[in-house]
Amino acid sequence: MSPRQIGVTEVALRDAHQSLMATRMAMEDMVGACEDIDNAGYWSVECWGGATFDACIRFLNEDPWKRLRTFRELMPNSRLQMLLRGQNLLGYRHYEDMVVDKFVEKSKENGMDVFRVFDALNDPRNLERAMSAVKQVGGHAQGTICYTTSPLHTVEGYIEQAGRLLNMGADSIALKDMAALLKPQPAYDIIRGIKDTYGEETQINVHCHSTTGVTMVTLLKAIEAGADVVDTAISSMSLGPGHNPTESFAEMLEGTGFETGLDMHRLINIRDHFKQVRPKYAEFESKTLVDTNIFLSQIPGGMLSNMEGQLRAQGAADRMDEVMLEVPVVRKDAGYPPLVTPSSQIVGTQAVFNVLMGRYKVLTAEFADLMLGYYGECIGERNPDLIRQAEAQARKEPITVRPADLLEPEWDQLRAEAESLPGFDGTDEDVLTNALFPGVAPGFFTTRDEGPKNVGKTQEQLAREKAVASGQANAVREPITYKITVGGRSQTVKVEPGE
Amino acid sequence: MSPRQIGVTEVALRDAHQSLMATRMAMEDMVGACEDIDNAGYWSVECWGGATFDACIRFLNEDPWKRLRTFRELMPNSRLQMLLRGQNLLGYRHYEDMVVDKFVEKSKENGMDVFRVFDALNDPRNLERAMSAVKQVGGHAQGTICYTTSPLHTVEGYIEQAGRLLNMGADSIALKDMAALLKPQPAYDIIRGIKDTYGEETQINVHCHSTTGVTMVTLLKAIEAGADVVDTAISSMSLGPGHNPTESFAEMLEGTGFETGLDMHRLINIRDHFKQVRPKYAEFESKTLVDTNIFLSQIPGGMLSNMEGQLRAQGAADRMDEVMLEVPVVRKDAGYPPLVTPSSQIVGTQAVFNVLMGRYKVLTAEFADLMLGYYGECIGERNPDLIRQAEAQARKEPITVRPADLLEPEWDQLRAEAESLPGFDGTDEDVLTNALFPGVAPGFFTTRDEGPKNVGKTQEQLAREKAVASGQANAVREPITYKITVGGRSQTVKVEPGE
Repeated sequence: MSPRQIGVTEVALRDAHQSLMATRMAMEDMVGACEDIDNAGYWSVECWGGATFDACIRFLNEDPWKRLRTFRELMPNSRLQMLLRGQNLLGYRHYEDMVVDKFVEKSKENGMDVFRVFDALNDPRNLERAMSAVKQVGGHAQGTICYTTSPLHTVEGYIEQAGRLLNMGADSIALKDMAALLKPQPAYDIIRGIKDTYGEETQINVHCHSTTGVTMVTLLKAIEAGADVVDTAISSMSLGPGHNPTESFAEMLEGTGFETGLDMHRLINIRDHFKQVRPKYAEFESKTLVDTNIFLSQIPGGMLSNMEGQLRAQGAADRMDEVMLEVPVVRKDAGYPPLVTPSSQIVGTQAVFNVLMGRYKVLTAEFADLMLGYYGECIGERNPDLIRQAEAQARKEPITVRPADLLEPEWDQLRAEAESLPGFDGTDEDVLTNALFPGVAPGFFTTRDEGPKNVGKTQEQLAREKAVASGQANAVREPITYKITVGGRSQTVKVEPGE
Repeated sequence: MSPRQIGVTEVALRDAHQSLMATRMAMEDMVGACEDIDNAGYWSVECWGGATFDACIRFLNEDPWKRLRTFRELMPNSRLQMLLRGQNLLGYRHYEDMVVDKFVEKSKENGMDVFRVFDALNDPRNLERAMSAVKQVGGHAQGTICYTTSPLHTVEGYIEQAGRLLNMGADSIALKDMAALLKPQPAYDIIRGIKDTYGEETQINVHCHSTTGVTMVTLLKAIEAGADVVDTAISSMSLGPGHNPTESFAEMLEGTGFETGLDMHRLINIRDHFKQVRPKYAEFESKTLVDTNIFLSQIPGGMLSNMEGQLRAQGAADRMDEVMLEVPVVRKDAGYPPLVTPSSQIVGTQAVFNVLMGRYKVLTAEFADLMLGYYGECIGERNPDLIRQAEAQARKEPITVRPADLLEPEWDQLRAEAESLPGFDGTDEDVLTNALFPGVAPGFFTTRDEGPKNVGKTQEQLAREKAVASGQANAVREPITYKITVGGRSQTVKVEPGE
């Protein structure tokens, strides 16, 4: 029997640098790898969406739409893939349906193929419009389950969630494990359950981070259960808070009855390319190689450092242990949302408030909105007392409808706003950019002509740092001019290494 | 059905720092973790042998026997484990049988429990005496298979090798994957084969490095096949050229029908301890997180950098590709030895010679010895033409007997040699120390009284480095005195940061 072919999605161009280096990689550091990526035999190439859009205009003075078109041009043979936050698109609020349609249409037009659509609360109503918009323009609509654990989250529940996504017309299901919580056996059970329930031909893509050190094993169990495609990152862009290494995944399958069909020589080229690039962004990297704390605390690393910062700002850094115990209480009261952006921040901040001021003495505006249903529905019931308290405090009704149903058509107004901005180029793409990041886009439009910035270090800077680190770090190595004042008399002195 | 209990050997105190930081960790950086290690529920604690003995006297001015006794005292509840190179003991030549007996006896007396005995060529005759010596003193004799791949290495061959070790009275079998070459499916097949052939009660320990990124999966497949004990390193001392993280291994088993029974709170203490320690030794660490090259080249990383150094020294750094192609030729001619110390150095150096001077124009003395059988037998036949050439060059007969059979009793002479050394303390332990490292022990004996050195950086040094790295690296931060000469007139100038 010939081995079953497992598809691989390469995430080096999106989630890998988002996870490892705060989404800072410049386009010029990616283009050199594209020909090899395009021809290595990947199922798809994740290269857009998530935080890359925001990072482009906020940090890199780069037009994200142009980035997409460049990828399209450089990788004509590949399925390009993006991560889309459902009704939030790539921003941080719900958008009215026509804006969702427009964004998807323009993304497809500029070159996108596979749309991985998710919602932080796993509320299907927050995915529906984006999914149907993708179908409308002929894209691949990938419905996503955000994996988390709680007393209410069960294998059966995830299988049912997959059914809801398939009912929306999902072309495939993504099991998304952003916190590296997905252990081998639950992965097996969920994936087998989906296949058993909806048919073997149901395509399942598995996305795991590597933070906890267990998920390479999860990937093998996932494909043993029938998973079709897995996400990995080329080894030189892998591990830590990132993903499992592509070459290792391919190699480990030997003799198992599975194979990737990836071209190992192309992979080596890609690896060598990013091996040169990664050190340029070292200042953005976390030091953590592996961390299993999340299994005990349920609190993702990013959320932890966030809460620590809030406590420090209040001079209460020593109360972290109390906050850690409060988080599960708040999460339960909110109906057990998965802890990802934005729910992780909302729950975490409320937990900090509870510890500092007394439990629920003050609700944050966001927590009140969460309790009132303005982010959507969670798996669990929300604490009814807190819903009443939120209602009183926020002077808003609790809602049960889809949050976006409350929005009025906004496209014309968004266009009018964009048109008033200096540097606006007249396109729908620019309207969308401003709609998504109204605080950042206007500035970007005025500086766009200066072209992209590279915030990584140059090879020369790296070489100099290395030289300094290897010697006596405090010694003067290049001429430096000091102004030295002695007894009221100033002199300018140039100091440089002697012979 | 209750989960099957999987034993874990913690390697943080031996192989982890040998692999990650060139065996440099000072005893004082380990003692603080011992109570937690002793009570975490490990099957055994690897803490001695391998390169630690050498490193103790060569770099740390520390008596390795005293280190063993300290571990014994600090971990009264644990099986202490060591790695022993068969007839080579911990040195780099064969020792006469009585020396082997003595070393094992003294190791047991000073506190050792589990002796993992291996030979680089997998020649059972090089293990026999050490194994029987361990049995003699009531230790746990663990017979070891060094895993490698070649056209001659088969699952069946490894199963047969296990049989030879069991015939020697092995209390358990170790499958030792020093190069992270062991993929999940071969691991499964070998281990299942051993259990099927020799009985389910045959204890199998699995030792994998993590270099290639595939071996966490290997560990799961190994225990699915019936493996009883696996080697891991606490997460803060894991990954890269080291081992898979202990906590991740424990966590990933949830729901699989296996469990470790390890105390997670103890593990967290151990982790936090070494999290503080590891940065002190950063200068000894390799930058490589994951590297799958070995699957293509069969050449372990350490061997590669060795050969590169040899080429550079000859001004032939550009001929590495030729050497890479030559290694498999030399390895085949030598009968496919596993490429570990010392065979990796012997094969690698000969490959470099072949490229620089023409194939086999010159044989190194060590390669000639290997061809003549003086290191033992390999799995494959050695090239008969080269055996004749080695015979002529080395003026030695090829041998087929066990190499140690050619040795005369040497204990009395070794004692006499030791007695002539200043600082010798009269014990058999000191005789053995000098016997193993005659080039290093005499110096160590004279400086022993000064006590152990710590070659790691202090927390203060680390803090200062961090401060320097975060600022303008070239600026003067502490007073530095320069001699400045202007127009022939020299002045001493002290420069320090202004206000």
